[in-house]
Amino acid sequence: MAAAPVWSVDPRTGKQREQVAVEATAQEVDAAVRAAHEARGALVDRTVRAAFLRTAADELQAAKGGLVETADAETALGPVRLTGELARTCYQLRAFADIVDEGAFLDVVINHPDDTATPPIPDLRRYKVSLGVVAVYSASNFPFAFSVAGGDTASALAAGCPVVVKSHPDHPALSEYVAKVLRRAAARHDIPEGVVGLVHGFEAGVELIKHPLVAAAGFTGSVRGGRALFDAAAARPVPIPFHGELGSLNPVVVTEAAAAERAEAIGAGLAGSMTLGVGQFCVKPGLVLAPAGAAGDALLKSLTDAVSDTDAGVLLDHRMRDNFVAGVAERAGLPDVDSPVTPGAGGEHTVSAGFLAVPASRLAAEGEHDLLLEECFGPVTVVARYEDETEVKAVLSRLPGNLTATVQLSEEEAAGQGRGAEILAELTPLAGRVLVNGWPTGVAVAPAQHHGGPYPATTSTSTSVGGTAIERWMRPVAYQNAPSALLPAELRDENPLGLPRRFNGRLER
Amino acid sequence: MAAAPVWSVDPRTGKQREQVAVEATAQEVDAAVRAAHEARGALVDRTVRAAFLRTAADELQAAKGGLVETADAETALGPVRLTGELARTCYQLRAFADIVDEGAFLDVVINHPDDTATPPIPDLRRYKVSLGVVAVYSASNFPFAFSVAGGDTASALAAGCPVVVKSHPDHPALSEYVAKVLRRAAARHDIPEGVVGLVHGFEAGVELIKHPLVAAAGFTGSVRGGRALFDAAAARPVPIPFHGELGSLNPVVVTEAAAAERAEAIGAGLAGSMTLGVGQFCVKPGLVLAPAGAAGDALLKSLTDAVSDTDAGVLLDHRMRDNFVAGVAERAGLPDVDSPVTPGAGGEHTVSAGFLAVPASRLAAEGEHDLLLEECFGPVTVVARYEDETEVKAVLSRLPGNLTATVQLSEEEAAGQGRGAEILAELTPLAGRVLVNGWPTGVAVAPAQHHGGPYPATTSTSTSVGGTAIERWMRPVAYQNAPSALLPAELRDENPLGLPRRFNGRLER
Repeated sequence: MAAAPVWSVDPRTGKQREQVAVEATAQEVDAAVRAAHEARGALVDRTVRAAFLRTAADELQAAKGGLVETADAETALGPVRLTGELARTCYQLRAFADIVDEGAFLDVVINHPDDTATPPIPDLRRYKVSLGVVAVYSASNFPFAFSVAGGDTASALAAGCPVVVKSHPDHPALSEYVAKVLRRAAARHDIPEGVVGLVHGFEAGVELIKHPLVAAAGFTGSVRGGRALFDAAAARPVPIPFHGELGSLNPVVVTEAAAAERAEAIGAGLAGSMTLGVGQFCVKPGLVLAPAGAAGDALLKSLTDAVSDTDAGVLLDHRMRDNFVAGVAERAGLPDVDSPVTPGAGGEHTVSAGFLAVPASRLAAEGEHDLLLEECFGPVTVVARYEDETEVKAVLSRLPGNLTATVQLSEEEAAGQGRGAEILAELTPLAGRVLVNGWPTGVAVAPAQHHGGPYPATTSTSTSVGGTAIERWMRPVAYQNAPSALLPAELRDENPLGLPRRFNGRLER
Repeated sequence: MAAAPVWSVDPRTGKQREQVAVEATAQEVDAAVRAAHEARGALVDRTVRAAFLRTAADELQAAKGGLVETADAETALGPVRLTGELARTCYQLRAFADIVDEGAFLDVVINHPDDTATPPIPDLRRYKVSLGVVAVYSASNFPFAFSVAGGDTASALAAGCPVVVKSHPDHPALSEYVAKVLRRAAARHDIPEGVVGLVHGFEAGVELIKHPLVAAAGFTGSVRGGRALFDAAAARPVPIPFHGELGSLNPVVVTEAAAAERAEAIGAGLAGSMTLGVGQFCVKPGLVLAPAGAAGDALLKSLTDAVSDTDAGVLLDHRMRDNFVAGVAERAGLPDVDSPVTPGAGGEHTVSAGFLAVPASRLAAEGEHDLLLEECFGPVTVVARYEDETEVKAVLSRLPGNLTATVQLSEEEAAGQGRGAEILAELTPLAGRVLVNGWPTGVAVAPAQHHGGPYPATTSTSTSVGGTAIERWMRPVAYQNAPSALLPAELRDENPLGLPRRFNGRLER
């Protein structure tokens, strides 16, 4: 059987650009995983890891022109957005290098013997070690930041774990390009090329998750694809952690007072957020609870004006375009659903942004309108008009887990008068990030970031963005009564590496 | 259909002592979970949580006489061991109260806005919140420390999570007794009784893991039972974290030099560890790599003498006794396997300790001897005699994951001469705790403890003993641009609660 070709496709025309590779066979996946496994030793030294990450950032930046051009040709995301995304990706690699240098992520805890404890405590010293080879499943919508050199790869390498990346079919040429740059950076530090493996093909992705030497996986994509891989990871003879980011509706609650105070700004802000990147963000606000009545009407008018002004855009691929067109049509066809600005097919290769409106009461109990509580990828949102707080609570109680939840408050509410704190507490169980008077698109790379949330937002309690993402690829180990001469430097009393740690109960920083 | 009775059984006679309860129906499981869910609010205040944990410890200690008597009648573990285990359990509850007070487990991270970052960082504040109701599956072999008031319950309550405990059929009367004491402690702090639910019955345990309001589970038990529940947890429409401790061989490597130096002490120490508690510890050393030749012979002689001197003992139930008798017979019947002290049936209700010896070469490649690499619950261990380092490495490479791995080194090796550090590094991938010149039985409750390990030792990367066990029941949430007036006190700049935190990059303690 001939190997299946992997084509780079131009979404602006639907035409094949070039054949980039062939899909990996099971043998090729095995070879990639084994090469990654062999590269583990080269990542043990944290100084080398940090230097590798910084060189990777430098090399990616140096290749900016070619990378952005290739990415744009495959994704139609445009050079401005892609240049920004590449800068973010490089920033992220350097941020993880800093985290490696600091060493707090090793979670060093040391206990000297204590005979007063019940039972007595022997000499115990704990820190975290790398899990092993990490499988990384690239996202369609972030060809840089959630793909070959993205957050999963950066955090895994920072943790000392080689990666084998399953490329996304929407940008195979860029994937090859980025992998080449990363391997060049690795070579500068005498790290074997195998430290960043790359495979193409759906079946290759399935083989990858089943490979006995794969120790954990990171995934960004759809609920359907992510759940299938999660299930495969859990069904292995030796199950492995599967950190998947699958889908999110990202609800927004607009209070009556907020709508009364700044309907126009909220409508315009919402339009900007939901159409950003042609609505192809995992944190796109997909459901907005806005009040019925005049203030809500004003909000809808502002939203209508702003969305109507939005240019048609190209989605990442034609399958997504078909799904979007069918998805919005099905939703718009439900009883009591209006389309103030009709979303759908634009030109032959584009889509138009739009939004739907529905009485919140329609979403308060199980029924055909539950379709509106499912993510629809692309430039569309659903505005649910509520009569009172009870309806808001009823709708919120029916939502699956989310990456984000947002509330728009009035100035007084934000200052602590009214239900602001209460609403924040109501949104907290729904999401991993809760925003006040902002919009969820734009995910900062920061120590305090949490990009995750109750299922299906993520399949674990972890984050895929921010410093703590490194925790996903490590496990603790404790040494009992190991003589100092045999201990890793990280665990010695004298703390030769100057690590933050918990020493006999005290936090030392 | 009549409800199935739950009997308390005396393992010393195999006779039923009393009917304790009936197995919970699906409706009763549902009621227990809902009651626990309703109790969440009462655990939000950390001061109340800590006080509750301390009162629980006080109340358990006050009930010591009755508790130990009941436990001994059901488990035959003896009053000395059980009194110690109860003390450990109370110590553990108090240790988690201290952890709650300190607040480091909330992992507070605060970032003020930073426009120099790429992309710019908004105001972001992250900490951890409780997951919700935790299902706890009790262990047979630790009626106090890994059961109703054990580590899973203590850490879950400390995390703010109510629990529903599935009792172990080996000690249902004690389970009811302990639950009653915990509920009395809860009542003292106006916490609803439902905060500690208790259900009996295999089917009830299956219902419990499937319940939509159960947010996570802790389990200590067999590979078979744990894997079935893990699979059920993963197969839910909304999968949940399942922290299971399933099984472990706990390998021990004795170097040639160590055997030459102190064969007798090692033999005696091993005998003590493998027969402790009638060999019913999850950290029982189940495979010992000892050198061939004279030094190894001396070790075996010492082991033979010590094990021969061990009294017959009563296992936790008759099914375990049957499994032990059949398991050791099957192992002893393999080619090239000797039984220097034959383990097996003792009296009508007891078992005799023993051990098997086999050339390590028999374990170096796949074959019928793989049975020796499976845990056999009870007072038996397997001594594999090796000719050289290559055989040691070959056997280690074939082991599944373990809770512990131990090395016995000579004085010189422990001081850094020879292969000590290298062996430590070889054992680290195999286990969650690595010991030098000690024995794995005895698991201290300490911040630096890690009681977990690669699968099947545990189904996650977490620990079930020690301070970090609390992490299992929490998830992070980040607030973006939330005004100070609306923020939880834990996340305010002025740090009114004095929490350790990471503030604009700096670690504050």
